[in-house]
Amino acid sequence: MAELRQNVLTREWVIISPERAKRPDEFARRKENEQALPDYVSTCPFCAGNEHLTLNELLRAPDNGDWKVRVIPNKFPALTSRGERVRRVEGIYRSMTAVGFHEVIVEHRLHNRTIALMTDGEVSEVLKVYRQRYNEIRKDGRIEAVILFKNHGEGAGTSVSHPHSQLVATPIVPSQIRSRMDEAIRYFDDMGECVCCRTVKDELNAKGRIILQNKNFVAFIPYAALSPFHIWIFPLRHVSSFHEINDDEIKDLSKCLRIVLAKLYHGLNDPDFNYSIRSIPTRDLHSEYFHWYLTIVPRVSKTAGFEIGSGMYVNTSVPEESADFLRKVNVPE
Amino acid sequence: MAELRQNVLTREWVIISPERAKRPDEFARRKENEQALPDYVSTCPFCAGNEHLTLNELLRAPDNGDWKVRVIPNKFPALTSRGERVRRVEGIYRSMTAVGFHEVIVEHRLHNRTIALMTDGEVSEVLKVYRQRYNEIRKDGRIEAVILFKNHGEGAGTSVSHPHSQLVATPIVPSQIRSRMDEAIRYFDDMGECVCCRTVKDELNAKGRIILQNKNFVAFIPYAALSPFHIWIFPLRHVSSFHEINDDEIKDLSKCLRIVLAKLYHGLNDPDFNYSIRSIPTRDLHSEYFHWYLTIVPRVSKTAGFEIGSGMYVNTSVPEESADFLRKVNVPE
Repeated sequence: MAELRQNVLTREWVIISPERAKRPDEFARRKENEQALPDYVSTCPFCAGNEHLTLNELLRAPDNGDWKVRVIPNKFPALTSRGERVRRVEGIYRSMTAVGFHEVIVEHRLHNRTIALMTDGEVSEVLKVYRQRYNEIRKDGRIEAVILFKNHGEGAGTSVSHPHSQLVATPIVPSQIRSRMDEAIRYFDDMGECVCCRTVKDELNAKGRIILQNKNFVAFIPYAALSPFHIWIFPLRHVSSFHEINDDEIKDLSKCLRIVLAKLYHGLNDPDFNYSIRSIPTRDLHSEYFHWYLTIVPRVSKTAGFEIGSGMYVNTSVPEESADFLRKVNVPE
Repeated sequence: MAELRQNVLTREWVIISPERAKRPDEFARRKENEQALPDYVSTCPFCAGNEHLTLNELLRAPDNGDWKVRVIPNKFPALTSRGERVRRVEGIYRSMTAVGFHEVIVEHRLHNRTIALMTDGEVSEVLKVYRQRYNEIRKDGRIEAVILFKNHGEGAGTSVSHPHSQLVATPIVPSQIRSRMDEAIRYFDDMGECVCCRTVKDELNAKGRIILQNKNFVAFIPYAALSPFHIWIFPLRHVSSFHEINDDEIKDLSKCLRIVLAKLYHGLNDPDFNYSIRSIPTRDLHSEYFHWYLTIVPRVSKTAGFEIGSGMYVNTSVPEESADFLRKVNVPE
């Protein structure tokens, strides 16, 4: 029989629906007629050699010559860095100037070198650039939250296949982030500990949902996964914001992220996915109650009217089975 | 320049992004190679004449003979009506038996008679069945919330093209519904009025986002619409739950809903969409602070990592322009 499970970080209930459950490999992407991507595309603005197609480069790592990672402004920015925060309140109507940052991180020189196929060293270069941009932008007094995310594949909302991720910094705390913090504070007040630390401890004890673990990170399918192959990667050390990650942790996260994405790539035939790094709002550093993490959402199922009407999700896979499936997918260590 | 706007019902901030904005008609669905649907499909379980393909009919309106609307159990129910609510709490892990209801409302005998193409009388038959099932199910002591919704088109999560909607009744109050109620209560405590009544009054005054109005209902694009052509339909009378709708209101809602969906159908070439009816949880009837409404979400844009990471939406259309566009789409009165 189906079961309801509650996500302790958000209080969201999920219907885990074995009546509707598919076998893990049924979520694999079908792409018989697609051609493999080439390593260079002459019209791609992100390919090495086409740097002239993108203006106002913000960062190049290393500094000069054959860059490994580049940061450029988003060509169609949702938020722009010019101007001040100006709020307007007229009765129930609240608005604000759309100041902030919207950047693109080009992850590799090659068009087809997605994280699943990189070396751990290459992934580290990307994560170091994430940290550097986060650190710089969070100091801007107009910014309340920094969101790092990646859209991989058309079903995940991107039309650019060259590997890239994005950073958006917002002039308000988005309500979803605020409500996650409120839950964490309430848990801390009730239980005297960080809800994320507790979750990590309990998952390590339970074992069944773990995908892999190394010295500094653990990857697992959440108990109340919202959708098939929803994955969380947590640092073992309690740190509230991603930008506080140290070099040793970057090394371990690179390996962990690369292996998890490679397991999805090989096990499910390169599915579309999003990932996002959840940190505390920029003004609330060094808090005892919240601990940053990375969430991966493969886009292998569709949301419909029930999700819109209730905010609940129906997950047609069983978290423990998905974790078992991913543990068994062999990828290069 | 782009603008942030806040949805007063949920506190969600939306980025209204004219830099990225498309013209309203650019959201129209392309479907050059699709064939028009026939009025009967021999393998369709919902077509008149194929009633033997669906078991355990729950309701037929009218009672006998040539039905106009039928209700049947969902073949792959997310929740089932057998058994009791049993909670399990083990540390941070909270789960519950998945009891509830999951029904399908077949809206018409004909395969291709979607609401946009029905007569107002036919839409009334559908809404009366919604009311009847809601009324019956809400009395079940195991139920906390009843969600009525519709998935139209593959992009909206359905593979069955015969016009139908669904009812799900949950044994818990979903956290999104609870948080909407918390916001409404807080507004009531602060301002002494229902936030929905206030919204309706202010939209009627502002005029620019109204699509249409009749004696009992008003349809408009919300000030902080989450996505292009996001539409709210509100009853003018303060009533907290859909099932309290009276016959006179059913008549007006039928006309309003049919015209709005016809405007989408003709103006945007039959886009995929979801709609959902938002009511108060079943135990909290006759409240002063919340007022039911219907929300329509055309699936003309994709959510990506930013939405997952922040809960914020980027709307690439301007609500006032979308409303103006829809007002001008001519449909039969």
